[in-house]
Amino acid sequence: MSNGYCGRILRIDLTSGRISVETPDDAFYRAALGGRGLIAHYLLKDLAPGIDPLGPDNEFILATGVLTGAPVAGSGRSSIGAKSPLSGGYGDAEAGGYFGPELKRAGFDAVVIRGRAERPVYLWVHDGSAEIRDASHLWGRKAHDVQEAIRAELGDRGIRVAQCGPAGEKKVRFACVSNDVTHFYGRGGMGAVMGSKNLRAVAARGGAAYEPADPERLKEMARAMSRQIAENERGFTDLGTTGIVASLNAAGGLPTRNFRDGSFEGAAKIDGTTLRDTLLVGRETCYACAVRCKRVVEVKEGRGRYAVDPHYGGPEYETLAALGSLCGVDDLEAVCKANELCAAYVLDTISTGVAIAFAMESYEKGLLTKEDTDGLDLRFGNAEAMVEMVERIANRRGLGDLLAEGVARAAEELGPRARPLAMHVRRQEIPMHEPRLKMGLGVGYTVSPTGADHCHNIHDTMFVKRVDAVKPLGILETMPVDDLSPRKIRALKRFTDLRHTINSLGLCQFVGWDYNQQVELVRAATGWNTSLLELSLAGERAANLARVFNVREGLRAEDDRLPKRFFEGLGNGPIAGTKVNPRLAEEGKGEYYAMMGWDRTSGVPSRAKLAELGIEWAAAHLPREAAERGHPDRRPAPAGKGRRGTGAPRGKP
Amino acid sequence: MSNGYCGRILRIDLTSGRISVETPDDAFYRAALGGRGLIAHYLLKDLAPGIDPLGPDNEFILATGVLTGAPVAGSGRSSIGAKSPLSGGYGDAEAGGYFGPELKRAGFDAVVIRGRAERPVYLWVHDGSAEIRDASHLWGRKAHDVQEAIRAELGDRGIRVAQCGPAGEKKVRFACVSNDVTHFYGRGGMGAVMGSKNLRAVAARGGAAYEPADPERLKEMARAMSRQIAENERGFTDLGTTGIVASLNAAGGLPTRNFRDGSFEGAAKIDGTTLRDTLLVGRETCYACAVRCKRVVEVKEGRGRYAVDPHYGGPEYETLAALGSLCGVDDLEAVCKANELCAAYVLDTISTGVAIAFAMESYEKGLLTKEDTDGLDLRFGNAEAMVEMVERIANRRGLGDLLAEGVARAAEELGPRARPLAMHVRRQEIPMHEPRLKMGLGVGYTVSPTGADHCHNIHDTMFVKRVDAVKPLGILETMPVDDLSPRKIRALKRFTDLRHTINSLGLCQFVGWDYNQQVELVRAATGWNTSLLELSLAGERAANLARVFNVREGLRAEDDRLPKRFFEGLGNGPIAGTKVNPRLAEEGKGEYYAMMGWDRTSGVPSRAKLAELGIEWAAAHLPREAAERGHPDRRPAPAGKGRRGTGAPRGKP
Repeated sequence: MSNGYCGRILRIDLTSGRISVETPDDAFYRAALGGRGLIAHYLLKDLAPGIDPLGPDNEFILATGVLTGAPVAGSGRSSIGAKSPLSGGYGDAEAGGYFGPELKRAGFDAVVIRGRAERPVYLWVHDGSAEIRDASHLWGRKAHDVQEAIRAELGDRGIRVAQCGPAGEKKVRFACVSNDVTHFYGRGGMGAVMGSKNLRAVAARGGAAYEPADPERLKEMARAMSRQIAENERGFTDLGTTGIVASLNAAGGLPTRNFRDGSFEGAAKIDGTTLRDTLLVGRETCYACAVRCKRVVEVKEGRGRYAVDPHYGGPEYETLAALGSLCGVDDLEAVCKANELCAAYVLDTISTGVAIAFAMESYEKGLLTKEDTDGLDLRFGNAEAMVEMVERIANRRGLGDLLAEGVARAAEELGPRARPLAMHVRRQEIPMHEPRLKMGLGVGYTVSPTGADHCHNIHDTMFVKRVDAVKPLGILETMPVDDLSPRKIRALKRFTDLRHTINSLGLCQFVGWDYNQQVELVRAATGWNTSLLELSLAGERAANLARVFNVREGLRAEDDRLPKRFFEGLGNGPIAGTKVNPRLAEEGKGEYYAMMGWDRTSGVPSRAKLAELGIEWAAAHLPREAAERGHPDRRPAPAGKGRRGTGAPRGKP
Repeated sequence: MSNGYCGRILRIDLTSGRISVETPDDAFYRAALGGRGLIAHYLLKDLAPGIDPLGPDNEFILATGVLTGAPVAGSGRSSIGAKSPLSGGYGDAEAGGYFGPELKRAGFDAVVIRGRAERPVYLWVHDGSAEIRDASHLWGRKAHDVQEAIRAELGDRGIRVAQCGPAGEKKVRFACVSNDVTHFYGRGGMGAVMGSKNLRAVAARGGAAYEPADPERLKEMARAMSRQIAENERGFTDLGTTGIVASLNAAGGLPTRNFRDGSFEGAAKIDGTTLRDTLLVGRETCYACAVRCKRVVEVKEGRGRYAVDPHYGGPEYETLAALGSLCGVDDLEAVCKANELCAAYVLDTISTGVAIAFAMESYEKGLLTKEDTDGLDLRFGNAEAMVEMVERIANRRGLGDLLAEGVARAAEELGPRARPLAMHVRRQEIPMHEPRLKMGLGVGYTVSPTGADHCHNIHDTMFVKRVDAVKPLGILETMPVDDLSPRKIRALKRFTDLRHTINSLGLCQFVGWDYNQQVELVRAATGWNTSLLELSLAGERAANLARVFNVREGLRAEDDRLPKRFFEGLGNGPIAGTKVNPRLAEEGKGEYYAMMGWDRTSGVPSRAKLAELGIEWAAAHLPREAAERGHPDRRPAPAGKGRRGTGAPRGKP
């Protein structure tokens, strides 16, 4: 069994066209794991404070994890990171599919891209080398079209394409990046960064085999997981994430009409079962995975009000809720059409849905008029208006241009009465999980490295009964969903640390690898004699690097706050009237900070925590002011110097 | 495979004679693991602040761990805990042997004893029941004699006896407890507590089989370890811990002449090889263990200057150094005789040796005269005087009565010039590891829950090259022995957390179970789906409970300090002149505090850390003053109340 992990990292400067390769050592990979861990490391080290996320000084990082491409279910994932044009802070997003494994087969663990090309380009990475190619002919074209053009041009249908789409070209702040046109690095506006660099796509192809340290053990685990999937995962294969519509609606936590309500009278028309029984034409999957949780939907030309192109797959739960219930829309065809458009333009469906719902409520309240909407009757429930708004946002047309800035900036524009309608944390739109139902997750939104995010957050529901799975984290007790006491916060901390880990490894949370199997996988893949302790520390390390990045960019604890709406009673449904207690949310946030080794008040990581995690170098990136104000372990300033300055300027990109 | 661990805990009140049984649930065992974890929990919950360690209100706790008695090498260990009469703070000690497994076979995971018997008694625990029996006839008799008397009286040679010995009867503050008369719960004066309760011995016997959740897996692991021991552990079987005399002397860190020197000219006369080639007559072992690291030495009556009784086994490294080099004694027979006497009277050889070395240096400096020593020429190197002093200490005769109080109290008595000669941290004598060689371990002495202790401390030497073993702890780098930078402190923290774990599990550090195998053992033994993360948290939990206990008893950060001697140049040998830098030691201590989630200045655990570990209840035991002064996460006191009082009285037992 070989020991260690050595990979290559491709560095591209699009301004100069310079291409180089770095080969970090095994210890680097072991501390970072890849994905989020790698991205946080590079962004903090490489970026100057206060840079424009949409300028050439930002980095656009594609990163696999040490498990990406391993021949086991769930290993298809990879990450993209950059300073987020949405939040102005640390940004990253993950996707499944085949691109990550292919990038590795092409010889690279990560691609770190900075600068800006003079004209549209795409990057062609293959068999250990890279080439910057002209993309002028691809500009403005939809995702599937571009993918097929690149495959044809390079003469290889096996090429995998990651791309930003027309929305990224237009720097829609929540433009995302897709691969295989159906897998989305969704949050944080990674597509806008890509577009700002005139980088339309990254195409990858390679023949390097994934070489695990212990191939036999991996094969054995893969076989066992295949059996487990065949036996237990039928439900998830059947409905995928779309099954959640019905369960959350039943619990009263299905985000409806811009989070005013938790129960949607039209839920049954857009839920997973209905989707399966009507528009579903196939189930797709990711690299090496038998779960097949991805939907494929189709409405043939002329068969419905909308034709829906199956090339773009089908909606996940988040999409059904964001473009459906959140907009009060119960027209499944319209939701699927809007999903197709988001995929074609490469827009994050969550932020898109939240932006449209925001506009709908603003319209209802008279903050937007028909003049603003160019005649569109933008009321909740108007399916056609919803679909039209997707087009307008993607193309920055009319009101769409305002909404393309995200709800936080749009509300600033519309004035004080609009602000309470903007559902975001740190300017990233809230995903489709209701904090008045899942209260720990609400605190998780506020303390996330990326702004409101469900991809590294606690599942409150899991802790009500099914605690066996989390016992290896030392969480031995059950707790209700509406709990915000320290036991919930420690569950949030532990669980989230490991979510950072899995997002660094390149492993899918939807495949049933338990924590100890995850350790086994890493061991078999890398030869490291590792442990859940070490992997958890890696997750915590990534979270701390991202936090230091955010503090450096001017993040203040005051920014880590839920929208006011969640402190008001939920409008309808089984838990109508339920509020998040603002004092408890604030205390929970402080408790999370403190449990993370951050200052309870300011949220600034302590030097000791950074040193404990082996990243003492990161302390030098903390602004002096924050260091002086916030450290629990600060020392008195040298005499005669005292307190001065205000640290780095608050980032307002 | 069954799931979970359920045991019984025996409660004895010696004052009333009341006997009861508690049956904590699986979650209790999973959080505590047993041993140190269990002891820290009970002592903090049960004891009132400020009680006299030698009074009836103290508890004397015998505790096994969840692995004690498992049919695998290294599982013979158990712990004893109490408020220490030496340090006045948290006290515990571990031993191997057969007593722990037998206590479990007798039906109990732990025995918690409080009160004080009116006359000498012993406790007879067998087959799920317990009986308090008269021990008047055993009082004053040596250990082996008492053990055999109990076995004869109860008519069973298979009975295992833990006992305090005559030294414990006389409340020598560093009297220890032995089992099988050759295995020692050495540190912290546990024997004095036992003696103070008029409890001469605890005898155990039972027939309950150890029932692991996965017996097949345990058997498999036991077989693999047997092979590993047969192949790799010859050196350790050959010399046991006594091999360390030569290696530390070569490195210049063999404590010599009361820590003045680091190199002993007579080392070769008392080292492991010489012992093996002269007095060694056998090698013994512990329950289920093939390592056989225990020595048996004998000098037959009339064959040397001293007859040495093989019933009492033979010296470990600590003993050879403490009664040998530390006293300047190179007479191996004398050292073995002193070892036998310590075993017969049941004295901790480390504290005994340090006390005698202290007296020798005081004598040399004229702080003690022949009048004080009753004519004994108590110079360094006088082997006979050393042996005689063991007798005097055990019997509290003459100068021995003063030394029986430990060096800290003796130095107080002798005045300011004696204080620098008293080698202790928090009134517990320093073990035989030189902080000027192993600098991380020096910081470890200061922050230990028990005062100076090597049994839950870092091995600096291990981190110079052999880092593979500690990589599962996230320690990926090597570091020199004389390093006190944050990387060393984080290694100290991680390593020590896991030492608390192993001391809670009841597993031996000298058997080569690596960290992941330890997890496997716990899993197979208990059925818990556990991880190194969870086990590490359990160790950290124990350390925090002990720290809260110490803070409640008046411990201040100022007490966490090495003796001044270590800040002065080592007298001789390869690293002559080397000092510990006091500023770096102080900073390292603060860094450890901060990495533990304790206040960097006061060392008081933060509420957040306690809550993170699931022991938020422990915060209520922090004195108000400490809570106000020390918390990194303190909140302002309510208006009009402000700061008041000085918290709990400083414990001066």
